Amino acid sequence: MTFERPNIAAMQGYTPGEQPAGDKAIKLNTNENPYPPAPAVAEALAAVHSEELRRYPPPTASEFRQTAAELHAVEPENILPTNGGDELLRLVLTTFVDPDETVVVAEPSYSLYPVLTAIQGCQLKQVPLEQGWNLPGNFSEQLQGAKLCILVNPHAPSGHLMAVEVLREVANSFGGILLIDEAYVDFIDPDKGYDSLPLVRELDNVIILRTLSKGYSLAGLRFGYGIGSPNLIAPMLSKTRDSYNTDLLSQRLATAALKSVDHARQGWDRVRASRKKLAAELAQLGMPCEPSQSNFLLCQVPHKPGAKALYQALKDKGILVRWFDLEGLRERLRISIGSEEENSALIDALREILGSTS
Amino acid sequence: MTFERPNIAAMQGYTPGEQPAGDKAIKLNTNENPYPPAPAVAEALAAVHSEELRRYPPPTASEFRQTAAELHAVEPENILPTNGGDELLRLVLTTFVDPDETVVVAEPSYSLYPVLTAIQGCQLKQVPLEQGWNLPGNFSEQLQGAKLCILVNPHAPSGHLMAVEVLREVANSFGGILLIDEAYVDFIDPDKGYDSLPLVRELDNVIILRTLSKGYSLAGLRFGYGIGSPNLIAPMLSKTRDSYNTDLLSQRLATAALKSVDHARQGWDRVRASRKKLAAELAQLGMPCEPSQSNFLLCQVPHKPGAKALYQALKDKGILVRWFDLEGLRERLRISIGSEEENSALIDALREILGSTS
Repeated sequence: MTFERPNIAAMQGYTPGEQPAGDKAIKLNTNENPYPPAPAVAEALAAVHSEELRRYPPPTASEFRQTAAELHAVEPENILPTNGGDELLRLVLTTFVDPDETVVVAEPSYSLYPVLTAIQGCQLKQVPLEQGWNLPGNFSEQLQGAKLCILVNPHAPSGHLMAVEVLREVANSFGGILLIDEAYVDFIDPDKGYDSLPLVRELDNVIILRTLSKGYSLAGLRFGYGIGSPNLIAPMLSKTRDSYNTDLLSQRLATAALKSVDHARQGWDRVRASRKKLAAELAQLGMPCEPSQSNFLLCQVPHKPGAKALYQALKDKGILVRWFDLEGLRERLRISIGSEEENSALIDALREILGSTS
Repeated sequence: MTFERPNIAAMQGYTPGEQPAGDKAIKLNTNENPYPPAPAVAEALAAVHSEELRRYPPPTASEFRQTAAELHAVEPENILPTNGGDELLRLVLTTFVDPDETVVVAEPSYSLYPVLTAIQGCQLKQVPLEQGWNLPGNFSEQLQGAKLCILVNPHAPSGHLMAVEVLREVANSFGGILLIDEAYVDFIDPDKGYDSLPLVRELDNVIILRTLSKGYSLAGLRFGYGIGSPNLIAPMLSKTRDSYNTDLLSQRLATAALKSVDHARQGWDRVRASRKKLAAELAQLGMPCEPSQSNFLLCQVPHKPGAKALYQALKDKGILVRWFDLEGLRERLRISIGSEEENSALIDALREILGSTS
């Protein structure tokens, strides 16, 4: 028999991108960073003695909080370390959104958001984006009465960047909490001058999600954090997170990674350069991409062979990209920026496939 | 302003035992294992290349599931790996207990349980244990209409062991789920013949919690798992847990630890021998202990100086034990079994303190 709550029995779980065993596949499907983590991360790993694992880890990851606070010029009270960015998303719902309250997300967006609202058993309102992946002009009106709004910026899966001014307007006119999911923030061109941290200092209803999975090449570590005013951070830190939500190893390595931000920045630069080059090459193949400030490109696929068939043809050649069976996305592919070698292999494979079908 | 849900605003968080920085304190307060993890764990740690962390971890920790299934003679479908045992407790509530449903726990018990029911916003019924830390005779009647019953066995904080037959009777007559929290199971005397695994094979409403924190000396790693029938495991695995709830490092090290169970067993034997010796020494000092099948002792404290004062006097000497400001526990101390050296230091300190107050 099933013991599931009705909302759990009725829902579908989140489907992560394929994670093939072995090293042979070219993985351009889950937005992993093509470059290794900083040498300091390897050093921090080598410095851990397994005997240290005998004891519980520092419960609030205090050294990481201090390091992140310094990086962002905020206080440790503004930082909540989490077991991946996903935990922060869950904690915000658990802590702030009652079952009869509403969460607003843009459509399309990160497909985990509706899964989390289904688990929480709260109301979900999906607001379609307009042409160019922009929020509709009446977005603030659509937020009326909602408790939480989650916006991913740069947007996934398009890579479109919203201006901080737009986010400020949303937060200012909103009686609930604005969660800005900045999983891909590190790949924004520096000349865009994007910086949402002032919102956290100005407003008590803004929380920013950061993760070490993409920008710091540590998807395998599961480490993210929230940045927000203490009224948002404190109840998650002291009440709703699991008592020891981050382990000793991940605390040590995440701290080392943030202290080596200059190393990570070199990788961000390389990804940006590759993004520009890859977008041009894809356009030449008849696959124009949305302007992306992220480490992936969302590109159109010619009617022949179509996106689903192209996804499969690439997979047959050992190259994984992401196809979403969702309204507005079915004729596109999302391609993570890989290393130069991986990107070249992709272009070669596309030439071969598209050449043989055109 | 606060944005917290009413149930969150009204609740208090869980208070973990003190985790002092530095290595000087003798920590007998959080039931950590005094012996290091297996050499194979150190080897697994040394074998990880930081570059591997670039990619997401295996989402369902399949190798760990296989290893745990073999150890317990069940199928991988019966195993749910979690970020510490605490995550399993949370997931069971999230997945199976609606806000209008009731969770039954024994009183006293692990103080995290009421915190988790407060977060879930469901009903909590605490059933007082009888003399000798046994369930009352009408316990099954008291479960009527409840959705979940959580029993820790061996019991915390007394160390009392319930027979499998009692658990079977509870589960058999219960329309909800019985969660048996076996955090301390590894320290049971083998001659007790305790084995609750048959319950999982016989019944579809039993889930067993295991952790690597105590028996495998890996509290810092945050790794636990549930063992239950697929109708209980599947919805937590595919719907309610965070997409990548356990990281690559912890999966590798936890798998190595379980494969080295024979090494861990040597530590369990040593803890059992120390437990017997320490209990005798404490009794000689006028601090008789409950018969314990765990890696801690709950001992009575003479009226003079009283448990709270003794806790503080030990702390002043650099020895941490646990005092609970709870009904029925205020005149006792819970003392984790340490290494022989730590236990001797404790006895010496107690002799000095009690000698000077008697």
